[in-house]
Amino acid sequence: MKRAFLAGALVSLIFAMQAGAASPEDAGRRIAEQGTRHGVAPCASCHGPDGGGNAGAGYPRIAGLDAGYLAKQLRDLASGRRDSAVMHAMAMHLSDGEIATVAGYYAGLPPPSPSAAPPEGSVAQTASGLIAWGDWSQRRLPACAGCHGPDGNGVGAYFPGLAGQQASYLEAQLKAWRDGRRANDPLGLMRTVAAQLSDAEIQALAAYYAALPPGRATPAPKAPDQALIAKAEKASAVSASKPAPIGFRPPARDAMPSGPLGELVKKGQAIFLETNRHPASAEYVGNRLACVHCHLDAGRLAGAAPLWAAWVAYPAYRSKTERVEGFADRLQGCFAYSLNAEGSSTGAPPPSDSEPIRALAAYGFWLAQGAPTGETRLPGRGYAPLKETSRGFDPKRGEQVYAARCALCHGSDGAGVVRAKGQVVFPPLWGPESYNWGAGMHAIDTAAAFIKANMPFGIGGALTDQEAWDVAAFVDAHQRPQDPRFNGDLQETAERFHASRFSLYGKVDGPDGRLLGDMD
Amino acid sequence: MKRAFLAGALVSLIFAMQAGAASPEDAGRRIAEQGTRHGVAPCASCHGPDGGGNAGAGYPRIAGLDAGYLAKQLRDLASGRRDSAVMHAMAMHLSDGEIATVAGYYAGLPPPSPSAAPPEGSVAQTASGLIAWGDWSQRRLPACAGCHGPDGNGVGAYFPGLAGQQASYLEAQLKAWRDGRRANDPLGLMRTVAAQLSDAEIQALAAYYAALPPGRATPAPKAPDQALIAKAEKASAVSASKPAPIGFRPPARDAMPSGPLGELVKKGQAIFLETNRHPASAEYVGNRLACVHCHLDAGRLAGAAPLWAAWVAYPAYRSKTERVEGFADRLQGCFAYSLNAEGSSTGAPPPSDSEPIRALAAYGFWLAQGAPTGETRLPGRGYAPLKETSRGFDPKRGEQVYAARCALCHGSDGAGVVRAKGQVVFPPLWGPESYNWGAGMHAIDTAAAFIKANMPFGIGGALTDQEAWDVAAFVDAHQRPQDPRFNGDLQETAERFHASRFSLYGKVDGPDGRLLGDMD
Repeated sequence: MKRAFLAGALVSLIFAMQAGAASPEDAGRRIAEQGTRHGVAPCASCHGPDGGGNAGAGYPRIAGLDAGYLAKQLRDLASGRRDSAVMHAMAMHLSDGEIATVAGYYAGLPPPSPSAAPPEGSVAQTASGLIAWGDWSQRRLPACAGCHGPDGNGVGAYFPGLAGQQASYLEAQLKAWRDGRRANDPLGLMRTVAAQLSDAEIQALAAYYAALPPGRATPAPKAPDQALIAKAEKASAVSASKPAPIGFRPPARDAMPSGPLGELVKKGQAIFLETNRHPASAEYVGNRLACVHCHLDAGRLAGAAPLWAAWVAYPAYRSKTERVEGFADRLQGCFAYSLNAEGSSTGAPPPSDSEPIRALAAYGFWLAQGAPTGETRLPGRGYAPLKETSRGFDPKRGEQVYAARCALCHGSDGAGVVRAKGQVVFPPLWGPESYNWGAGMHAIDTAAAFIKANMPFGIGGALTDQEAWDVAAFVDAHQRPQDPRFNGDLQETAERFHASRFSLYGKVDGPDGRLLGDMD
Repeated sequence: MKRAFLAGALVSLIFAMQAGAASPEDAGRRIAEQGTRHGVAPCASCHGPDGGGNAGAGYPRIAGLDAGYLAKQLRDLASGRRDSAVMHAMAMHLSDGEIATVAGYYAGLPPPSPSAAPPEGSVAQTASGLIAWGDWSQRRLPACAGCHGPDGNGVGAYFPGLAGQQASYLEAQLKAWRDGRRANDPLGLMRTVAAQLSDAEIQALAAYYAALPPGRATPAPKAPDQALIAKAEKASAVSASKPAPIGFRPPARDAMPSGPLGELVKKGQAIFLETNRHPASAEYVGNRLACVHCHLDAGRLAGAAPLWAAWVAYPAYRSKTERVEGFADRLQGCFAYSLNAEGSSTGAPPPSDSEPIRALAAYGFWLAQGAPTGETRLPGRGYAPLKETSRGFDPKRGEQVYAARCALCHGSDGAGVVRAKGQVVFPPLWGPESYNWGAGMHAIDTAAAFIKANMPFGIGGALTDQEAWDVAAFVDAHQRPQDPRFNGDLQETAERFHASRFSLYGKVDGPDGRLLGDMD
């Protein structure tokens, strides 16, 4: 007994010494190739020598996935939060250190090229449509790319790379999400999405993603509070609200007119989706935002300030500018405030007869095909105002909501996730790359209305009214680019343009201890 | 017998000597006050010593009316073309010289101030509405002011002054026109109008006009061919065509929104009606035209390029400019060509975000309230294309049509009737104050379509297709302001922009013997 104990201690010591002496990569490779002395089988025996998985058996490719994602899955498999008898038996015997080590090892491996042939025809069409666009109007289904990244290679620990993953594995997991056999997703996001997918769509998506070239995941946003998110994971019921009944539907995306008008409409849509980096509009955008970040589903979604409702409502008088504005003026206003044109290379919104304004106007016009001119009460217009609660709004309370429900994507620093060349995955909510103090969204009532109806992304309505008010107050209690109407005097500017109690500009301190709007 | 003859001859001689010696005014006064030796009673005995008429008896005020008008009526009364037993007995004994003399005399008298009190309330509203606007949409009824002048004082020999006329006379005449007891109007214009008026409207109009201050008539356009017009008077059946069924009706004129949008809409309407002299737009107009001259009934009339149909159809690709144009671009095009902006004080159309463009756009938007966005097939849009006839079109044939049907208002020189300060009564059709060679109306097919549906004013459809084609060709075979796209070379410009066989630019000689478009 004593010898056995000593022998055991010796083995532990040797393992520990080896581990201590070896680089993390060596240590990770050892687990991958040899398993551990606690009975963990070598990962490679199922996931393949290159970490590429096994299509026939449905074992996933793990090489090149995000380390945080792999570690979270191992922890969830260990705890039983993610259900897999085989992997539970392995993961429960891995220490936190070993999980980190082996996750890091596989994250560092180059992902093998996919062997699956890309699907064609209607299968490819179904999949690529869902990936790029989702199906907002029929099912409030967000685009896969919205969270898993435009390249399908995932974002941080919560949105795994799907490109080049085994189709059999993807299919099994989507069905598991859908049928409730897998539930370790933050905020219930994947359950909500998968619940709306048909078998044919799942198969199409699995086949399509399997054939895409895998690559590195986009790094996660800054430090979401793991403990809060974990709490939110357990607490949150999957409860997206039903969208409001829609009185108007814009034309199908593939029904664009042909010829030069169609080209301009198409360009408008492209600008709308990537305003901050599209060649026609980038020079007028002073932050990392695009039209689509406030107007979801490319400006189509009822309840998210759809473009079709705006088109028929202009010209209209606006108290903000104290004049009658046409659609072009209104677009310029978006550039001036929400897109912070003052910080752009031109320093101003695009001229009223410039290409981006023409293209966006053509796009708005096309989306409104058939809508009655002058109708200002189209159901779904703007953001449905959110009734105030008896508790008002409180940035402090909102901070908790934010950490649990928003930081996951937008980051604890509010900076969102922006890839190389300004490709925005999750938009910045405050700071220098977000909307400025003149934007509609800086007003807490507007932000609360938007958030209530539309956030978290894909499960709009899941927050309580109180949560929406509080988190809106929290977001809008941060510094952001100066109001372009700033006249050099914070108090004067605040009195003139921020008299509403829904604006905190010039009234309370931001987290930096300075009055909001104080940029000197 | 012989003595009687001598005595008669002597009397004649004395009269002739007196007439010869007297000024035309004296001669006129003598007839007015003393009658003639051929038994013509003194005019003053019925029409009053000041020519003001007699309200109770229904005798018209004749002082201050146009001399040509008075003379024509006397001739028609003499010939029986205008029916009045009393006046026939007088007029038949007046020589042509006496008619001219007495007509000139009364034309020179100051019109007495009206004694009638202006009507109020709904009566005034009915009358002022018909006078300023007519009722195009319901009855294709042109505004009274459209022919009788904006001040109601008439235009030339064919459109008598009505302001300050006896109400009893006006009422009797309108009923006579309506019931066919009076028919000496050119082209059947008054018969067509009066046929559509109710008793209440006739009474309202009579009362309203009777209380307006009378003044001088606007001079007639240049030398309409009397013989041709007389021929047309006899030949022309009153046969305005039924307007096409209308699928859309713009909002009522008095239903404008309140507040700043309403103000802008109102300004847009004002600019539309008097583009060449409205303070907001005059500096961009290089001729004597306004939007309303091509877009009848203030842009409301189906079949006369109504603004509501245009609003919902833009943005759209235009082959003319080879680009997608928004509504503002389209408006600028109208300024550039139809309103000849190059000849204006600014030399260019108003900028896209200028006041006139904003106001006209707001007006178009408002007119289109409820019309489906993007609908390019609204019944009544544009001008209904006119099928070609087997005889083609011929300016020479058109010249006859023009003299008989058009010169009455637009003048034999095509210069129309323009009052002081550029107030247009009848728009110029060619020459320096008309649309230029880039305007849509310079194309014979467009002009033919417009003319067929809308001319003569108020009796659209009265011309045969052949007449419309021919007269369009005649109008568009005259010199007009240069095409702003002119590159210095007439042939090159013609080849590039006037390849259509419906344009005569650079192809045939104008009446001045120079190629059309040759302005050197």
